Amino acid sequence: MTATPTPRVTIKDVAARAGVSKGAVSLAFNHKPGLSEATRDRIFRAARELGWAPNLTARTLAGSRVDVVGLAICRPARLLGLEPFYMEFISGVESVLTEHSCSLLLRLVRTVEEEVGLQEAWWRGRQIGGSILVDFRADDPRVAMAERLGMPVVAVGHPSLTGGLTSVWTDDATAVTEAVRYLAALGHRRVARVGGAAGFGHTAIRTAAFDEAARGLELAGALQVATDFSGEAGARATRSLLTAAPPDRPTAIVYDNDIMAVAGLSVAAEMGLRVPEDVSLLAWDDSQLCRLTHPTLSAMSHDVHGFGAEVARTLFGVIMGDGAGSHPVPTPVLTPRGSTAPPR
Amino acid sequence: MTATPTPRVTIKDVAARAGVSKGAVSLAFNHKPGLSEATRDRIFRAARELGWAPNLTARTLAGSRVDVVGLAICRPARLLGLEPFYMEFISGVESVLTEHSCSLLLRLVRTVEEEVGLQEAWWRGRQIGGSILVDFRADDPRVAMAERLGMPVVAVGHPSLTGGLTSVWTDDATAVTEAVRYLAALGHRRVARVGGAAGFGHTAIRTAAFDEAARGLELAGALQVATDFSGEAGARATRSLLTAAPPDRPTAIVYDNDIMAVAGLSVAAEMGLRVPEDVSLLAWDDSQLCRLTHPTLSAMSHDVHGFGAEVARTLFGVIMGDGAGSHPVPTPVLTPRGSTAPPR
Repeated sequence: MTATPTPRVTIKDVAARAGVSKGAVSLAFNHKPGLSEATRDRIFRAARELGWAPNLTARTLAGSRVDVVGLAICRPARLLGLEPFYMEFISGVESVLTEHSCSLLLRLVRTVEEEVGLQEAWWRGRQIGGSILVDFRADDPRVAMAERLGMPVVAVGHPSLTGGLTSVWTDDATAVTEAVRYLAALGHRRVARVGGAAGFGHTAIRTAAFDEAARGLELAGALQVATDFSGEAGARATRSLLTAAPPDRPTAIVYDNDIMAVAGLSVAAEMGLRVPEDVSLLAWDDSQLCRLTHPTLSAMSHDVHGFGAEVARTLFGVIMGDGAGSHPVPTPVLTPRGSTAPPR
Repeated sequence: MTATPTPRVTIKDVAARAGVSKGAVSLAFNHKPGLSEATRDRIFRAARELGWAPNLTARTLAGSRVDVVGLAICRPARLLGLEPFYMEFISGVESVLTEHSCSLLLRLVRTVEEEVGLQEAWWRGRQIGGSILVDFRADDPRVAMAERLGMPVVAVGHPSLTGGLTSVWTDDATAVTEAVRYLAALGHRRVARVGGAAGFGHTAIRTAAFDEAARGLELAGALQVATDFSGEAGARATRSLLTAAPPDRPTAIVYDNDIMAVAGLSVAAEMGLRVPEDVSLLAWDDSQLCRLTHPTLSAMSHDVHGFGAEVARTLFGVIMGDGAGSHPVPTPVLTPRGSTAPPR
């Protein structure tokens, strides 16, 4: 860190040299409409000649930067690219940020401790006006971090995991229960779930809800398998479930995302099992993939893009201090397509 | 833009108050290892008490910020979430940025003109140390922009499109030619291509290469269709191609990405055509999707994650001024799987 002296030039000097108002300089540097190309050029030239750059606090509202928000994701880079959920979520976040001329500062981290250090550095360094926190675990250190820093955040996770932070969540327990009830109503008694990574809070919520629903419906053959959310892991889990001989073989499988369900469909075909005659498959999240397979995949349909957009809108509310409250987004709804039917 | 006065406090004052060296303050604010939790707390407390925040120029090397790089993508938010390419590309970029404790400033833009304004504001405002420029078109205004600003960039695109900028690209023409030759060698004479969006430079390169290869091999029935890269558009294009009666119906189809090929597989099944007996399908990019379908999809296999990583490495080279040169990444290679065979 070099102790570069801050130039003594101010925005007023730049405005004077360019022959415009301070407001026009602000417009140019904040990348807002309303200036001709020639005026913008003149302003940037004046700033360059004077060696002036806008103070970070310049792009702030009541002391908080509002043109950049942070998002750290704790996943191996390889897996991030393979799972449709995050890209749909980020595209939803971006759809709202773009309306506000706001950018997303994105970083992959290896541990939640690394994220705590990073968020603190971003916030202390005034690089962001707030952050979106995802993938909550039990006793998550980010709750205390956000409170200690007084940093505007939105926690994406169930309030049981996110302490007193403003949170936006999906009611996973209700959705899992509906999925199990639907399969039981079709007549399935041996139902399996290919779940996500065991460390995540939402996975634990789904696991508990699945167990409870299966107990309530007296499904003797309920089974759950944990994966890392990847298609390969979904294929392995499906293969292992379907190699059991009837009557131990599940007649219906619920997946925690859609890429694993696509993989499951392929494993069934490779094993000579027909979907849905021999085994019913039910996907989760329901990206376009579910409508592109043959048969099309029944799914617990979740508007992940809309979820991301709602999270971004809520974060702007928190940054503006308008008392945006915690709230769930619409619960995933059952969308039956071609991959589920009564067991033979 | 308020003219908030810059605090006169320096890093030296913060170090003195916390009882540490200036280097320790730098470590804390740059989020580097080597300090105890207690020391970090003391430094951040001292900075807060003195109202000090690091000058942006502090996190720079030879005047250029190196902890944030920019990426603007000109696609509708909805489409971004649906196409595996960008998520794999971004995951590759992030895999290298993470090694350098560097974040990605991500923004969706509506037009290339909006991107030019944004990149200039990011650069002038010292928010980034450089940018990755993607989706080049003919006469792209970003070439002049980067040269005018003297901004470190890496252009992702063929040198015929990226002017004098340092660029990293895929040799699309060679790969398309190989794809067409392979299908012709299997005996196909009626080969179609379901291509990407017509405005992109790499689409134009592929279109020209397909035409030339088909002419060279005297394939009378070569046909091309433009899409927006989405699965739905790929399904529509496939349906339209396959409704022609033989012998006009293509016996082989090449796709510009893999999600469209997955959609094509499903359309063939819905129309009662067997793959590869009735029609051969060849995907592009080859994300895990191609190995999760049944039959598995033959593809022009392209390591998109590795492509993103190489682009990020090259950008660091440009920022450091080490004369990183333009270069192609490995050309996509033919990976035959279950979806291609000789025509009946």
